[in-house]
Amino acid sequence: MKTHVLVAAMATAVLLSTPAMAQFQKAEDAIKYRKAALTVMGNHFTRIGAMANGRVPFDAAVAASSADVVETLSKLPWEGFGPGTDKGDTRAKPEIWTEKAKFEEAAKTMQSEVAKLSAAAKTGSLDAVKAAFGGAAQSCKACHDAYRSN
Amino acid sequence: MKTHVLVAAMATAVLLSTPAMAQFQKAEDAIKYRKAALTVMGNHFTRIGAMANGRVPFDAAVAASSADVVETLSKLPWEGFGPGTDKGDTRAKPEIWTEKAKFEEAAKTMQSEVAKLSAAAKTGSLDAVKAAFGGAAQSCKACHDAYRSN
Repeated sequence: MKTHVLVAAMATAVLLSTPAMAQFQKAEDAIKYRKAALTVMGNHFTRIGAMANGRVPFDAAVAASSADVVETLSKLPWEGFGPGTDKGDTRAKPEIWTEKAKFEEAAKTMQSEVAKLSAAAKTGSLDAVKAAFGGAAQSCKACHDAYRSN
Repeated sequence: MKTHVLVAAMATAVLLSTPAMAQFQKAEDAIKYRKAALTVMGNHFTRIGAMANGRVPFDAAVAASSADVVETLSKLPWEGFGPGTDKGDTRAKPEIWTEKAKFEEAAKTMQSEVAKLSAAAKTGSLDAVKAAFGGAAQSCKACHDAYRSN
């Protein structure tokens, strides 16, 4: 019972101090969440890219770890694009909501390409990472070109 | 060779379009990265909390998935607290850099508590999640109280 009360108190404290809720209390929470997920994903994707294009030495463990982060995060941003989240501090284009099926297809392609990259990184082979990186990068770019303003 | 060129071109395109670099080009990139990681982590931690305290029905698969996201992200923010990242768009207190060892210890405690929560969530038992959630929430709160301004 004591533990139960402590857990409830802790949960309340966390809820009060954390901006974003499960289903997002406000549109701006959803926007902040999806941008955050894409920021972290982009950062780790870029680390892999730096190895794939020889800008930094290949480190198989780092590549695999970053690819794992990218794969985990690739599943997250999409629920942040719900109705009413088209306006605010965002570069998201209206087409995301007017071409919903196409946007979702592009998001799925990215997740699939990123899963391939993650599998490639797990092999420890730089050639495998290079081979998978191009398709994954193309899937990021296609979606940004179509659905993100500059 | 063709693939190689394509990969290089893609990598360059991604590097040019992504704000944060491997080792962070600018302090503001590091700040943005660590905040993004903490935002996504906090969001998913809150989802688990909502189940632990009965605000939303327990869904074992959702809890396990969110706990996995939290565990993956719990390892990331720390490299974003490097030298020179104490000023800018941040609520990080100077103590992070003046009490570096203490801060790192608090970060490690959080990662360890979150790993326990993730293991608990994988059992599919709400009681296990409740038991592990309190300690994890306490580790978040301790660090926020000491190292984050309001």
